[in-house]
Amino acid sequence: MSTRYPHPDLNTLPDDIRAKILEVQEKAGFVPNVFLAFARRPAEWRAFFAYHDALMAPESVGRTSNLTKGDREMIVTTTSAANNCLYCVVAHGAILRIYEKKPPVADQVAVNYRKADISPRQRAMLDFAMKVCTDSDKVEDADFAALHVHGFDDEDIWDITAITAFFGLSNRMASVTGMLPNPEFYLMGRMPKAKA
Amino acid sequence: MSTRYPHPDLNTLPDDIRAKILEVQEKAGFVPNVFLAFARRPAEWRAFFAYHDALMAPESVGRTSNLTKGDREMIVTTTSAANNCLYCVVAHGAILRIYEKKPPVADQVAVNYRKADISPRQRAMLDFAMKVCTDSDKVEDADFAALHVHGFDDEDIWDITAITAFFGLSNRMASVTGMLPNPEFYLMGRMPKAKA
Amino acid sequence: MSTRYPHPDLNTLPDDIRAKILEVQEKAGFVPNVFLAFARRPAEWRAFFAYHDALMAPESVGRTSNLTKGDREMIVTTTSAANNCLYCVVAHGAILRIYEKKPPVADQVAVNYRKADISPRQRAMLDFAMKVCTDSDKVEDADFAALHVHGFDDEDIWDITAITAFFGLSNRMASVTGMLPNPEFYLMGRMPKAKA
Amino acid sequence: MSTRYPHPDLNTLPDDIRAKILEVQEKAGFVPNVFLAFARRPAEWRAFFAYHDALMAPESVGRTSNLTKGDREMIVTTTSAANNCLYCVVAHGAILRIYEKKPPVADQVAVNYRKADISPRQRAMLDFAMKVCTDSDKVEDADFAALHVHGFDDEDIWDITAITAFFGLSNRMASVTGMLPNPEFYLMGRMPKAKA
Amino acid sequence: MSTRYPHPDLNTLPDDIRAKILEVQEKAGFVPNVFLAFARRPAEWRAFFAYHDALMAPESVGRTSNLTKGDREMIVTTTSAANNCLYCVVAHGAILRIYEKKPPVADQVAVNYRKADISPRQRAMLDFAMKVCTDSDKVEDADFAALHVHGFDDEDIWDITAITAFFGLSNRMASVTGMLPNPEFYLMGRMPKAKA
Amino acid sequence: MSTRYPHPDLNTLPDDIRAKILEVQEKAGFVPNVFLAFARRPAEWRAFFAYHDALMAPESVGRTSNLTKGDREMIVTTTSAANNCLYCVVAHGAILRIYEKKPPVADQVAVNYRKADISPRQRAMLDFAMKVCTDSDKVEDADFAALHVHGFDDEDIWDITAITAFFGLSNRMASVTGMLPNPEFYLMGRMPKAKA
Repeated sequence: MSTRYPHPDLNTLPDDIRAKILEVQEKAGFVPNVFLAFARRPAEWRAFFAYHDALMAPESVGRTSNLTKGDREMIVTTTSAANNCLYCVVAHGAILRIYEKKPPVADQVAVNYRKADISPRQRAMLDFAMKVCTDSDKVEDADFAALHVHGFDDEDIWDITAITAFFGLSNRMASVTGMLPNPEFYLMGRMPKAKA
Repeated sequence: MSTRYPHPDLNTLPDDIRAKILEVQEKAGFVPNVFLAFARRPAEWRAFFAYHDALMAPESVGRTSNLTKGDREMIVTTTSAANNCLYCVVAHGAILRIYEKKPPVADQVAVNYRKADISPRQRAMLDFAMKVCTDSDKVEDADFAALHVHGFDDEDIWDITAITAFFGLSNRMASVTGMLPNPEFYLMGRMPKAKA
Repeated sequence: MSTRYPHPDLNTLPDDIRAKILEVQEKAGFVPNVFLAFARRPAEWRAFFAYHDALMAPESVGRTSNLTKGDREMIVTTTSAANNCLYCVVAHGAILRIYEKKPPVADQVAVNYRKADISPRQRAMLDFAMKVCTDSDKVEDADFAALHVHGFDDEDIWDITAITAFFGLSNRMASVTGMLPNPEFYLMGRMPKAKA
Repeated sequence: MSTRYPHPDLNTLPDDIRAKILEVQEKAGFVPNVFLAFARRPAEWRAFFAYHDALMAPESVGRTSNLTKGDREMIVTTTSAANNCLYCVVAHGAILRIYEKKPPVADQVAVNYRKADISPRQRAMLDFAMKVCTDSDKVEDADFAALHVHGFDDEDIWDITAITAFFGLSNRMASVTGMLPNPEFYLMGRMPKAKA
Repeated sequence: MSTRYPHPDLNTLPDDIRAKILEVQEKAGFVPNVFLAFARRPAEWRAFFAYHDALMAPESVGRTSNLTKGDREMIVTTTSAANNCLYCVVAHGAILRIYEKKPPVADQVAVNYRKADISPRQRAMLDFAMKVCTDSDKVEDADFAALHVHGFDDEDIWDITAITAFFGLSNRMASVTGMLPNPEFYLMGRMPKAKA
Repeated sequence: MSTRYPHPDLNTLPDDIRAKILEVQEKAGFVPNVFLAFARRPAEWRAFFAYHDALMAPESVGRTSNLTKGDREMIVTTTSAANNCLYCVVAHGAILRIYEKKPPVADQVAVNYRKADISPRQRAMLDFAMKVCTDSDKVEDADFAALHVHGFDDEDIWDITAITAFFGLSNRMASVTGMLPNPEFYLMGRMPKAKA
């Protein structure tokens, strides 16, 4: 129950990486461990977060997407649970709670997305993501058609696929290297917001 | 995302069942849905909770057990997650947090008990419980021996087996009948207790 | 190939349990081992058999069911075979042969229920039971609808689910504790009844 | 629940096949369906039974084997159960009962060979056969070594492998073509022999 | 990475077997290892190749089949890949390339037949073959109907089933005994034929 | 059997991407389809290839690795075969043949790496990679220890993990988007080099 690869000292990191980490710390109040765990390999760190941002913050690369921020985090939480990745379920479950403004939804999709309080459109999205996660070789035209019914176009399907695939990478790195969720994540977004 | 079997009116229930439900409500502040879901079949309700109490509160039937309350809830949470049972993971995860006084432990064992912050003895206990949950036909003497190493005796092993088996029943009933966790469970036990 | 937990001496058992065991012996000519195996834990014995009777002999608790005795034993035999539980396949296969009056049917459903000489209604019942047994988290409305087509109502579906779930408990207890079928069961009900 | 391929008329069969079938009928009192099911394709019939006899009656081809007749039928029954083949479990289970002179052993190995009343040598033999049946690509030197410990030599291991592989063929043919066990098999060998 | 059973000296073999091996060598330029590996057991050798020829060269036993030579080798390559059998994938992949006159097709069906450049009819044929290979107990009328749609009749379905079943035997023998593909197979049929 | 996402026109691509593609074409004689398939999303293209190069050409980012080029391609080919990814098995199998200078090795690891003609050190490496590929949540200290025995250090293990994880991403993208191997790959590296 501890990481297998020690985190580097922040002061030893390349300027761009240290700057980004400090920016995240400023914004979130803590540094999610994934930023420190990958930092020991700067080239991989840069590629990982560039890929992450291209998929999870498409506007940062000048792209729009029909998937909402909540949709994206829901894909991550659901497929990471299928991969039994502690770091990603806990960290992205926290962000999912915040975006969807529904505290129970993260635990629901992590345990059994078929029982979750989500829309039929999101349910279809998760069915597809789960097939990409566990049986990508069996994805066929009928799976695309099932998403088109709910208004997803082929760019959206690329997004669902790429997010699932990217976090499959992340899940494997986190599980094998012993990446652990920061304690802050367990509680984030669990309180329903008081109405003004 | 709603139960398939409507809950009966409390006033229509047999006295013993209604009394027990009111007692639980008094103590917990709400009635966990499992008490209402089973109440439509009084004979099954009585057998289910008698069995539950015999295993989870052995002192109530004049028996002692080397498993702590936390051990027992940890078995329930871990194996219910393997069965993808939303009700049991959320409800028993809440109780586990309270007994173990470690808020993150429920999410940890639910996602990947191999990464959880638990003792080697608890790890061995969960390895055995998971084998009972998914491959009970393959349990052999070597599995008993692995528990003996950690100080578990054959009565403890009966307990681990019976708890896993009983909640396997509960998981199947909850998933098929559409039993949903009360909203209260999601948040229970998540705040670390302030020190006096 | 012997039980891991010795059977208690009949004389040391509580009166209600000993009386029931003697009654069973009187009726069947022998004591099925499950009665002795559980007796070392009286509270669990009582809950187990109360639950058993509520499901398998609903008239004993004032309930009627559209499932026949044969239907119920067929569910037990089929799902116990999926769990590779020697005790339950042999013991309940015997009872199934007797109720269905078709000696081969128990071996058929135990090996491959898709090849068994049963009605389409029973086939649908077993398809559902097998899903409850192995993938209860994936049971959905379409599975209920498939049973409605054959005239099963939601109470019947509760019965199928509960019987499968209860014997999933029994299967795990029997396999792990080393419960072995009494020799008598292997042969019971195998002779076609002579016609008068 | 009926064969998908009609049996040919005995009179239309080539002489050698008809003669063999009549010989079997003379000896067994009935014609096991496998002889009729394959007869519609004489060349396959001849190859199938030539292979069968070379493995199951090695003395008929001038070979000796350290496996007993009971060992061989035990392999067939156990692996056919893993393949859920009704015909082979019922027909070869019958022969197994006769050779081993232990009526319960066929049901035991079919349901869970780990619980069967067999020797440690037979247990090791079945462990290997099951790996050949389900994971032949993973068989390695350590699996051979585990059999050597029990006195099996490499010729015996070839036998275990070939019997498992041959009945894997038979299982698939029987299941897909709808081959059904003759009623006689269900009861054969179930009565313990009276002692003289 | 070497066979576990030494090949016999050609001069020690029975005349019929030696003659056939020399004939194959004459025709192919080398002796495929399967001919030598089985030759240590002449009776099994004869049955194996008689069965092989009855299925793969039906005209040799006076039967016609609607499956082309390419269809048959495609079934072998695809299902052998599912069984991870090195010998059969490499050897029959080579023959498949030659018959289909499409060098890439063998690698395609071995890795993922759903992505292969084959006809819808062949795709349906492989779907059925794969079900026979991995889940023969679940083959039902609907699977037959799916083939009828593509013009396959029940004799063709027997062929698909028997080829899959026979090479399942071959796969298990090859993997366990350590049969290795001759080096020649890896390259055979990979060059597109120059057009005249 | 065609890609689901059309390739963009080379002239419409950003300069850096077009330049890199032309450089690859110059060097290899053709443009591997992965370069064109990802190019429709420039930000993802850049991140993907930056990550690829950081892992597969560590010297390009100023890092050294104890894994040889052949080791790395062997991990890719083996785990891509486990994921049934046609593009990666064919393309990286080609590169593996070239680096290892053993034409058969790519087909061997793709079909069954346990039968491949590789060193015990490479075998241990592939055992670990396969566990990362299919059961990353179960990787534990013992798996690290098994690699240490063969001289791999923890940086090497990070490499094995990251390569497996990255190509798991690539496999899912290729399979879902319908990326097909260029015809050139099927034949590359299959001819043993003539000795000078």
